[in-house]
Amino acid sequence: MSETKSTNIILFSGDYDKAMAAYIIANGAAAYDHKVTIFHTFWGLNALRKDEPIKANKTLLEKMFGKMMPRGAEKMGLSNMHFAGMGPKLIKKVMKKHNAMPLGDLINMAEEQEINLVACTMTMDLLGLQKAELRESSQYAGVAAYLGEAEDGNVNLFI
Amino acid sequence: MSETKSTNIILFSGDYDKAMAAYIIANGAAAYDHKVTIFHTFWGLNALRKDEPIKANKTLLEKMFGKMMPRGAEKMGLSNMHFAGMGPKLIKKVMKKHNAMPLGDLINMAEEQEINLVACTMTMDLLGLQKAELRESSQYAGVAAYLGEAEDGNVNLFI
Amino acid sequence: MSETKSTNIILFSGDYDKAMAAYIIANGAAAYDHKVTIFHTFWGLNALRKDEPIKANKTLLEKMFGKMMPRGAEKMGLSNMHFAGMGPKLIKKVMKKHNAMPLGDLINMAEEQEINLVACTMTMDLLGLQKAELRESSQYAGVAAYLGEAEDGNVNLFI
Repeated sequence: MSETKSTNIILFSGDYDKAMAAYIIANGAAAYDHKVTIFHTFWGLNALRKDEPIKANKTLLEKMFGKMMPRGAEKMGLSNMHFAGMGPKLIKKVMKKHNAMPLGDLINMAEEQEINLVACTMTMDLLGLQKAELRESSQYAGVAAYLGEAEDGNVNLFI
Repeated sequence: MSETKSTNIILFSGDYDKAMAAYIIANGAAAYDHKVTIFHTFWGLNALRKDEPIKANKTLLEKMFGKMMPRGAEKMGLSNMHFAGMGPKLIKKVMKKHNAMPLGDLINMAEEQEINLVACTMTMDLLGLQKAELRESSQYAGVAAYLGEAEDGNVNLFI
Repeated sequence: MSETKSTNIILFSGDYDKAMAAYIIANGAAAYDHKVTIFHTFWGLNALRKDEPIKANKTLLEKMFGKMMPRGAEKMGLSNMHFAGMGPKLIKKVMKKHNAMPLGDLINMAEEQEINLVACTMTMDLLGLQKAELRESSQYAGVAAYLGEAEDGNVNLFI
């Protein structure tokens, strides 16, 4: 049992708190010497977007999607409706008070731990997102690559 | 390692985009020669409903549930609140433009690939759904059958 | 293959129906002689809260969170927006009619089956929840303990 264990997380959700959970588990698994991959698909792709707007040649629909979707981790909303009124700002205030890491820092740590941050190419195509709009550390793959990793994985989660 | 690998997905969600993700992964895994099962429970059961209304002997409450729940894959809504205004119609337009398969076609493909489409009998009983209302290819089982498959599975996901 | 199989569920969601699904799977797996752990994190922690208010020394923000979050399983809301109007009350009525177990009973059964009900200590710290507010059967651990179990687990789910 000396072989490397692996954790493969599909991040489908665009919610701030769910993305936090994904990155906390991923960073924990990397600290345990797992090979870790986060496969960002659908709304989860927003976690990899750069903060600043990127000039890109887009159709009208793609531009609209680009504007409507949160640009980067810190712009994502919460999953829990009961908190919608206060939202991520309050959560971030509480997190700061408890020295918990905001999502952006968790993603930076994931990069430092060499976690594979994969962007789903099918979703990119669908929503008109381009490589220039995503973090430099992003890798690009489809569902086949995910399955190739996950079928031998130890911890596979859909978040 | 020549034995068949298996993918077991619990589809709990009644969201159009989550069901798409479930069926894209399932079809991918089937193409990889996995034995694939999608266990439809709670709101995920709606993906298996036939489009047309079926005459059935129901209580008032069951009739009400039947009317309120979307009848078939193409009637399901989106998980992402930010898009609620535009909803599945816009997504479908974008998908069509990119030649992506709508959910109904993904389910048909799953049938062709002999993916096991299982309807959770406990949920059927709870919501008053009857076999005649679900796709002919549906199989019927409970949580015990799911666990029997999943405990030896390679990729187990809850969507 | 005579070793004990294990099921490890992360319950992130605070939705009544998702918590039901988690506990139904967990109880099923325990009946199959799996070692079962439910790791309650973020909003999932509400399932472990006691019904009655507990006197605790809290900051204003913590008091606010404590009031806003549902106190115990039976106060949790539904995931499905289409039913928001009627909510858990109708579901419970339907469940009663079909002799299905409400969430509170499913949790009691989990305790009887010696399922490990773990409260995520990071979330407790973040939301200002104290041990006195949670079920006596609760265990306390962080993500590292979860990963230690899950990396050798058979069925790992994020709900």
